[in-house]
Amino acid sequence: MAHAPIRISKARFEAFSDGVFAIAITLLVLELRPPDLAAHSNASLAHALLALWPQYLVYAASFATIGIMWFNHYALFHEVRYITYATLIANLALLMLIAFLPFPTLLLGRYGLVTPPTFFYSATFVAISICFTALRYVTSLKPGERASIGHLLDILGAWTIGPIAYGVATVVSIVSPLASIIIVAALAVYYMLPWSIRSALAGGAAQADAE
Amino acid sequence: MAHAPIRISKARFEAFSDGVFAIAITLLVLELRPPDLAAHSNASLAHALLALWPQYLVYAASFATIGIMWFNHYALFHEVRYITYATLIANLALLMLIAFLPFPTLLLGRYGLVTPPTFFYSATFVAISICFTALRYVTSLKPGERASIGHLLDILGAWTIGPIAYGVATVVSIVSPLASIIIVAALAVYYMLPWSIRSALAGGAAQADAE
Amino acid sequence: MAHAPIRISKARFEAFSDGVFAIAITLLVLELRPPDLAAHSNASLAHALLALWPQYLVYAASFATIGIMWFNHYALFHEVRYITYATLIANLALLMLIAFLPFPTLLLGRYGLVTPPTFFYSATFVAISICFTALRYVTSLKPGERASIGHLLDILGAWTIGPIAYGVATVVSIVSPLASIIIVAALAVYYMLPWSIRSALAGGAAQADAE
Amino acid sequence: MAHAPIRISKARFEAFSDGVFAIAITLLVLELRPPDLAAHSNASLAHALLALWPQYLVYAASFATIGIMWFNHYALFHEVRYITYATLIANLALLMLIAFLPFPTLLLGRYGLVTPPTFFYSATFVAISICFTALRYVTSLKPGERASIGHLLDILGAWTIGPIAYGVATVVSIVSPLASIIIVAALAVYYMLPWSIRSALAGGAAQADAE
Repeated sequence: MAHAPIRISKARFEAFSDGVFAIAITLLVLELRPPDLAAHSNASLAHALLALWPQYLVYAASFATIGIMWFNHYALFHEVRYITYATLIANLALLMLIAFLPFPTLLLGRYGLVTPPTFFYSATFVAISICFTALRYVTSLKPGERASIGHLLDILGAWTIGPIAYGVATVVSIVSPLASIIIVAALAVYYMLPWSIRSALAGGAAQADAE
Repeated sequence: MAHAPIRISKARFEAFSDGVFAIAITLLVLELRPPDLAAHSNASLAHALLALWPQYLVYAASFATIGIMWFNHYALFHEVRYITYATLIANLALLMLIAFLPFPTLLLGRYGLVTPPTFFYSATFVAISICFTALRYVTSLKPGERASIGHLLDILGAWTIGPIAYGVATVVSIVSPLASIIIVAALAVYYMLPWSIRSALAGGAAQADAE
Repeated sequence: MAHAPIRISKARFEAFSDGVFAIAITLLVLELRPPDLAAHSNASLAHALLALWPQYLVYAASFATIGIMWFNHYALFHEVRYITYATLIANLALLMLIAFLPFPTLLLGRYGLVTPPTFFYSATFVAISICFTALRYVTSLKPGERASIGHLLDILGAWTIGPIAYGVATVVSIVSPLASIIIVAALAVYYMLPWSIRSALAGGAAQADAE
Repeated sequence: MAHAPIRISKARFEAFSDGVFAIAITLLVLELRPPDLAAHSNASLAHALLALWPQYLVYAASFATIGIMWFNHYALFHEVRYITYATLIANLALLMLIAFLPFPTLLLGRYGLVTPPTFFYSATFVAISICFTALRYVTSLKPGERASIGHLLDILGAWTIGPIAYGVATVVSIVSPLASIIIVAALAVYYMLPWSIRSALAGGAAQADAE
């Protein structure tokens, strides 16, 4: 049955992706484990709740990061007109890693700033940023266009900073988990900033689509 | 690459926010822990299920509150035409706190009406109402408009009741957790009421958008 | 600020409700607890998995019931043109109970066909069907129309079968949990049937909306 | 009240299905259980995290499979114009099984490649592929058309490969769980491929719907 390829609805593709982002970001709270105190005074309970601060911090960091990635995903597909099968597969790989993020987040919250969970957490971001770069590549191809080495190198040149920086954070976690987390946090701020700066340069507000 | 700011689709922004609200409200049930009885008669099981009433109450209170916040969020953005980057960030902070709510809800259900979880629960609402006020401020700015102290004070004057009232509930939890919860419940009713009253004054029903 | 009531978008109201239905129905699987076997042979593991059959049955029953309720909710609002504030509140109460359903489902799966969880499960359906009846009443009012006793009685006459039948199941659970569950299952089939029969009478298929 | 059948909105039907797919795929991460180490060195923690590899593999396999099924569901309904009541029920049965998939996935991750969980996992896919075939049948009927044996056999001829191949995997799990999992993985690749090949033959990219 050699019929024409199915035209993939951009609306449903985006809705499915948005759903996975929204669910993954909201599931983070389920990984917060309350203290399990049998006998307790108000003072010991308050102390136990304060002692969970690494979990709160990691919750906030992961939430902010998934939120920013949602926005970057949104911004990327805002300009995409053609959803190819390669885009579908690369996007599924990206969603698989984003939906996985609550697990290393849980490990970091439970075991604290030691090497194994920090390495795991940073390495997950390496994989995520590789998928993002792949997604930028496949979405930049025009329909029917053959992949060219030159074009691939252009994309790699523009978007390798993510995988490299997260790779550095991963290696650094072996000697200093704290420094590794600071790099990851700095990258979150970096991914927040550029658009804000561009926005300020270009005059401020973005008008909502009537769509 | 100094191009114009991306126009943020109001539809997708709202869909993502709605998703987080709907998921957070539905996840509340997962924090209900059944009694863990090895040997049990019908009578002891029935007794154990009834003894969970603080959990049922807190479930209902948190569900109603998130539901009302969803509606207020909806009503706020109904009149917003421009989604700026500041709106995006303030909204993400609000969603982060709303998605966090199941955790203090779980603590209240597990440890009951004592100070530490009640304080935590009320303090979360302080943070949520501050985010709501910030969101009202950033969405009230026209595109390209500079933030003015006068305008900021106007917004603060109109919308500080939330942070202050929840702040009172938080302080009160130190001397009387029960009184604190009553204040929070009264605020939920308060946030339900005004629109209902306005609606009744204006003649009743609201016509559904054809959209 | 006496301005006109906000016009509630039927699309967003439905999307939020659909989200809660879809999440509640999918969360049911999280209440399935695997056997916790330390040392085990293939035979003992297979036996333990088969012994979970009450959990599988209850999962299927709750899934089917939420699915049918989603469809009935859909069918109800298909004909509704005006979303009033009363509709909003009645709908929130309905969603609160539907999102709660995984909890009595979990209790039934864990403690089996004994009175306390069966009573709890049936009683939850009583509350759900009361909310459905209330929702039918408030959505049948025209905007600005005063509630009349006669109209209320009409609705009650047409839609009391649900609360009464589930009430019978609840009372029956005291003497026979099995009979109670059979009544609940029969009601699920009943709520599936009528539309199917009407559909067959009217000639079969329903044409999808172009919307 | 013999009125015409309700016209089922294809948009809301798809949105509800998409929601269940997106939630089921994202819930998979909650079934990953971290190692529970009291005293631990970095080395023992790293070792424990690596020892979870069967869980990671099963997570990826289930995620990819649900993702592909989402796409096939999408492609199927892309061409469907009429949502009948039979379609609604067959679709609900399919969603029930897809939402169930995290449970056998959890069992496989916890108990490893032994017969009982592998049998359970493959048998779930048999049931899913039977539902898919049923869904293809009911959606291929024109409104008002009577079911004919010939047409049923056509559909069965074209789409029995799924149930049969998964049935083989289920039987094989009795003698070799590993071989069973390889068959399931091969089928996932198979369900990924055809469209890709068709797409390549037909010239590559699919243009996104303007919708």
